[in-house]
Amino acid sequence: MNKQSDTKIRYAVIGLGNIAQMAVLPAFEHATENSKLVALVSSDAEKLRILAERYQVSITGSYDDLDRLLRSGEIDAIYVATPNTLHRNAVERAARAGVHVLCEKPLAATVADCRAMLHAAADAHIKLMTAYRLHFEQTNLRAIERVRAGEIGEPRIFSSVFSQQVREGDIRTRAEYGGGALFDMGIYCVNAARYLFQAEPFEVTALRVRGSDPRFTEVDEMTSAILRFPGDRIAQFVSSQGAADVSEFRVVGTKGDIRLDPAYSYHGLMREFFTVNGETEAQTTPLHDQFAPELVHFSQCILDDEDPEPAGEEGLADVRILEAIVESAALGRRVTLSPFERSRRPSGELEMRKPPPRKVEPVHAPPSSKASNE
Amino acid sequence: MNKQSDTKIRYAVIGLGNIAQMAVLPAFEHATENSKLVALVSSDAEKLRILAERYQVSITGSYDDLDRLLRSGEIDAIYVATPNTLHRNAVERAARAGVHVLCEKPLAATVADCRAMLHAAADAHIKLMTAYRLHFEQTNLRAIERVRAGEIGEPRIFSSVFSQQVREGDIRTRAEYGGGALFDMGIYCVNAARYLFQAEPFEVTALRVRGSDPRFTEVDEMTSAILRFPGDRIAQFVSSQGAADVSEFRVVGTKGDIRLDPAYSYHGLMREFFTVNGETEAQTTPLHDQFAPELVHFSQCILDDEDPEPAGEEGLADVRILEAIVESAALGRRVTLSPFERSRRPSGELEMRKPPPRKVEPVHAPPSSKASNE
Repeated sequence: MNKQSDTKIRYAVIGLGNIAQMAVLPAFEHATENSKLVALVSSDAEKLRILAERYQVSITGSYDDLDRLLRSGEIDAIYVATPNTLHRNAVERAARAGVHVLCEKPLAATVADCRAMLHAAADAHIKLMTAYRLHFEQTNLRAIERVRAGEIGEPRIFSSVFSQQVREGDIRTRAEYGGGALFDMGIYCVNAARYLFQAEPFEVTALRVRGSDPRFTEVDEMTSAILRFPGDRIAQFVSSQGAADVSEFRVVGTKGDIRLDPAYSYHGLMREFFTVNGETEAQTTPLHDQFAPELVHFSQCILDDEDPEPAGEEGLADVRILEAIVESAALGRRVTLSPFERSRRPSGELEMRKPPPRKVEPVHAPPSSKASNE
Repeated sequence: MNKQSDTKIRYAVIGLGNIAQMAVLPAFEHATENSKLVALVSSDAEKLRILAERYQVSITGSYDDLDRLLRSGEIDAIYVATPNTLHRNAVERAARAGVHVLCEKPLAATVADCRAMLHAAADAHIKLMTAYRLHFEQTNLRAIERVRAGEIGEPRIFSSVFSQQVREGDIRTRAEYGGGALFDMGIYCVNAARYLFQAEPFEVTALRVRGSDPRFTEVDEMTSAILRFPGDRIAQFVSSQGAADVSEFRVVGTKGDIRLDPAYSYHGLMREFFTVNGETEAQTTPLHDQFAPELVHFSQCILDDEDPEPAGEEGLADVRILEAIVESAALGRRVTLSPFERSRRPSGELEMRKPPPRKVEPVHAPPSSKASNE
């Protein structure tokens, strides 16, 4: 680790697409207790100029400047918000420079890349965290705690739909960047099934639709999968980039159920519907900053020299399932997953409440869908 | 057809389990315009005695008496509410006697039985209708009409959960009677996907769980399936007899979505949530008699010599999909369905509103689950 200034972890944000601009950069305003934005990296000079001014950031650079920046001693950690297929390169470069990495989900576009990234981080003794914002989000954490406490009995069924109308030409429609409905959206459903069941699936079957829509010549428009978990549990989901906005899961137990709708949103409120004995209680969580908690948690892990969770392994855990889903859909048969265990799971202890994020105007970075930035 | 009395179709109800007692028998009170309950058939003499008195029915008999009853000239039609595997026998006996048949879903436990029943009915020129009560139900019909009118754009995704906690020892847990979550509950999800998409699926993949619960030594506790429809449409569902009561579907289009919750209930209210442009309208349909419309429709088809719809073919259309789901789950691979077309689909024209059914005490016929008769 580089020398720290004022016990605040100094971050460079790598990649300045819509999510970085709308969510990550504003989040530093709610992470001032231990985190500081000090550098921006992008291939777009105008983005760098406008955003450096907006956030009073003095260090900017292109990807060609990245290694020099990482070795400058000015940076303790990077937030990787580049396209999925470029995550590995950023992590390996950071590891070589001894800089810690908070990396957007999916951790990478392949299991092979994930493993390489985990090895690079371990070898260099840097900390690697996968940016699962919902692991710190109160509505999802309350659902986890209810399931864990047996409030719906034994959990048996997870069912989810996560869909949006992706903008034509968006990065999520580009194969070379690891786009597609499954890797962009389905990963939330897989992650939620895993954190609600607190277990790993051992079997998947799936169908994918590329479809005739001209937006989806390179990637899946829609993927649906069924995952089998130990203890007679089943998870099903549909992820789609070609349907109206839906963001919902329902976990059904032997005694009751919990429905979150919206379940996965970062730009609006969340709602929980908790039903036992036919009686439903509804709770609304107002819009809140879901990215600042990730920064605060990761920075504190660096400062205290503790292992961050969601770790890199948590990112790998999902990508290996996504790969099995792709394989099942391609082969038209059920795919068995190799044994995999995680000893750490999200829990209510991780909850961190922050105010809503500041509204900003994106620079050269349209939203992925019409509704995303509303 | 036998001679009719007072232009009312005279029915025998065959099989006096919970659904017959709680829903079918009381429904005749709301079908007096063209239907009359005149006979009861059961192997339980006490059921016959008590129910004959309750409904002022003069003709009763056991299954041994069925052929004589069917040929007595006192009966125009039968309502078949026997276990699934016994439907075929009742239909074939009725056909031989020239008596019309309104048959509970699933039409039969196998495609072979369905085909035999359709042939028997055609050869004997009797009318055969599958008792899909939701084809007359206003909440489901409104969803169908909204989809048909393009109110959610092009429909793309159907997602459903239908679950209950089945009573130990219930007929739905018995293999010899065609029990199991898929045939009892999953059929509603398959039927709904078909009537909302107004199309037939051509591919399925599925997982089944028998599980370790002692209730399910003979049948599936839980079955989940993904169905692929023409036009890049996907349907997913989980049906379970080992989880808390959930009865929900969501159909998502390119512009909006419709959620029904409950969607399939006959003993409570129904609710619709219709969302376009992020605005949701909710509508509640109070408890209403869903069985009387079936009787009225079927009787009128007999009186007018028209083909009833949902026809026997509609029952076959679902059972062939259920068989493919069972095959897919057993083989662990995707199963392609042979081409199948239906020219008739449920539409708003079939809507018929009736008051709520009378509450009655079942005789030797406990509900299938704790919540069923609430």
